Amino acid sequence: MTMWPNRQLLDLLGIDIPIVQAPMAGSSCTEMAIAVCEAGGLGSLPCAALDSATADAAIRTIRQRSNKPLNVNFFCHTQEKPNPLRDAAWKKRLAKYYDEKDIDVPEFVGTSELTPFNETMCELVEQHKPEIVSFHFGLPEKQLLNRVKACGSIVFSSATTVKEALWLEANGCDVIIAQGIEAGGHRGMFLTDELTTQVGTVALTPQVVDAVNVPVIAAGGIADGRGIAAAFALGASGVQIGTAFLFTPESLVSDIHRSALHDSTDTALTNLLSGRPARSLVNRLMREEGFLSAEIPPFPAAAAALAPLKAQAEASGSADFSALWAGQSVGLGKAIGARDLTLQLAANATQCLNSLRSTS
Amino acid sequence: MTMWPNRQLLDLLGIDIPIVQAPMAGSSCTEMAIAVCEAGGLGSLPCAALDSATADAAIRTIRQRSNKPLNVNFFCHTQEKPNPLRDAAWKKRLAKYYDEKDIDVPEFVGTSELTPFNETMCELVEQHKPEIVSFHFGLPEKQLLNRVKACGSIVFSSATTVKEALWLEANGCDVIIAQGIEAGGHRGMFLTDELTTQVGTVALTPQVVDAVNVPVIAAGGIADGRGIAAAFALGASGVQIGTAFLFTPESLVSDIHRSALHDSTDTALTNLLSGRPARSLVNRLMREEGFLSAEIPPFPAAAAALAPLKAQAEASGSADFSALWAGQSVGLGKAIGARDLTLQLAANATQCLNSLRSTS
Repeated sequence: MTMWPNRQLLDLLGIDIPIVQAPMAGSSCTEMAIAVCEAGGLGSLPCAALDSATADAAIRTIRQRSNKPLNVNFFCHTQEKPNPLRDAAWKKRLAKYYDEKDIDVPEFVGTSELTPFNETMCELVEQHKPEIVSFHFGLPEKQLLNRVKACGSIVFSSATTVKEALWLEANGCDVIIAQGIEAGGHRGMFLTDELTTQVGTVALTPQVVDAVNVPVIAAGGIADGRGIAAAFALGASGVQIGTAFLFTPESLVSDIHRSALHDSTDTALTNLLSGRPARSLVNRLMREEGFLSAEIPPFPAAAAALAPLKAQAEASGSADFSALWAGQSVGLGKAIGARDLTLQLAANATQCLNSLRSTS
Repeated sequence: MTMWPNRQLLDLLGIDIPIVQAPMAGSSCTEMAIAVCEAGGLGSLPCAALDSATADAAIRTIRQRSNKPLNVNFFCHTQEKPNPLRDAAWKKRLAKYYDEKDIDVPEFVGTSELTPFNETMCELVEQHKPEIVSFHFGLPEKQLLNRVKACGSIVFSSATTVKEALWLEANGCDVIIAQGIEAGGHRGMFLTDELTTQVGTVALTPQVVDAVNVPVIAAGGIADGRGIAAAFALGASGVQIGTAFLFTPESLVSDIHRSALHDSTDTALTNLLSGRPARSLVNRLMREEGFLSAEIPPFPAAAAALAPLKAQAEASGSADFSALWAGQSVGLGKAIGARDLTLQLAANATQCLNSLRSTS
């Protein structure tokens, strides 16, 4: 049995390997969660893009095949009102692409496919009592959070600044994920929308560890045993890893996304793909439209206007308009199974930690 | 005697502590270099802002007071031609500030106070034969580099991407500094000007280590023993630390810069202060003018137009127009002497490394 240098998270969660598989809405589901749970890490089920019946069925599937602790993840963004002016401006900006592809300007459906954590999902949590419930974009309203905590679920959320970490701790979060700028997918930022001052994992982790009393999980740019060992050095008691799991057969990424993960390493933060800043491999849309726009329709409605462009481009094998979520360590990824990846990451981290022994 | 887990850099340089004091043009000189050298680390003399007579005197002073290996640092940027159109646009943009301060629009001197490494400086290197010569913004032209190497000097330069690391190795660089996005001051980038895809230390270091055969020094966001231990975990055999040394009494930062280091933690990459992207604590100019501009006069001429604004603001205790170079771990800084800081960083790193031992 491996003895990790810091057992704070392992003991709290009752798991063997201090690796949280990042919940990746749309890119992971039951198979990845089961594989990681059974390997001894913390598997996660992202529910942000699922309706409650699908989420319910997914949790049942996982529970049938694993009795290990499970993390069920929800978004808790503030749902913005539809913004017809921004919608129109965005469609105008995309007009040249509609023209090029000979596509009719799409009708805008102002509604969102990504519903924040709500009464229905809370009932699901109460029914299944997952050992861990993690949130992205802050925490849900107090009354819902209290109900989650009353189930005995341990609550995780992400902080991108020391201020957010302090806020999460003060508002009942049990474990804080320090999300460095390297991380793929959506920034969890919720007290600020200032991207310019967002910081890297090496800078964020120790400053969050110093600021709070709860266990800290490092996330962002960690994709092998060296990154895991580094996270422990920085004071974290665990890591959250996303991109490395996108390479596994359990990942639900499209073939186009999977190819891009193998072929390219340049990622950038962009809000063009969803309306909120998120890290994606660079594609044509991002390069031509400048990565970030202040005029983007509210999250996640920006994606609706891209949908027909994306569909047509992907049909001809192009990722020009696709969200290619990936973190800055995408270059370290390898196509192996999620169970083997978890075990290999743990073994390599242990080996790396042992090699750091300072003998005298 | 401390045994570090990776002695590649220590053995190559003949030093005891794998900490390179970052050469910080304008903010450090002889006293800091001597203190770090004598503590057992690698002290650095930044020459980019010195004329050759001043640099010569500084090297003599250091050599008189320390016989330890010394790093002498130069910029080797490509000197851009003056750009009257951009100069005019920049002054127009600053007009509101000149008005506010009742300052005449300054005449532009197109010349640069920061001369790239040249014949004169190369003669200085040949005269003093510093054990290490480090460059920022790539490497000097082949013929000058060959003369430096003929002196027996070990050559360092910074890479911000794997591609830059491979280029440096192929072009004769002996040690590569992997400069993560967290780093304060100027980005060393020289094969790209694309800031959006620049990566954090946790992602950059292992990918550079995998790509090259020369020793790698990690830089960016490292300000305490935890960061040093993390750098070793990531595969580096040393670290370069800047911001933590800005807090020392040996640092030459202005009182205003020193106060800002203690009072604020928000940093951002900006090209407004010099014409090239560099990380500074956020001030009024950066916030109001949007951090980055495509229309900025060539490096370092952008600073000339700011000089009178800066002078007047600083006279009244304001950092509104000052370059406040700092990295993302500025919040970890403490005001202690450069010698004690070096020894304390080494002791804390050793302690951290030992705490990571994975026992079984």
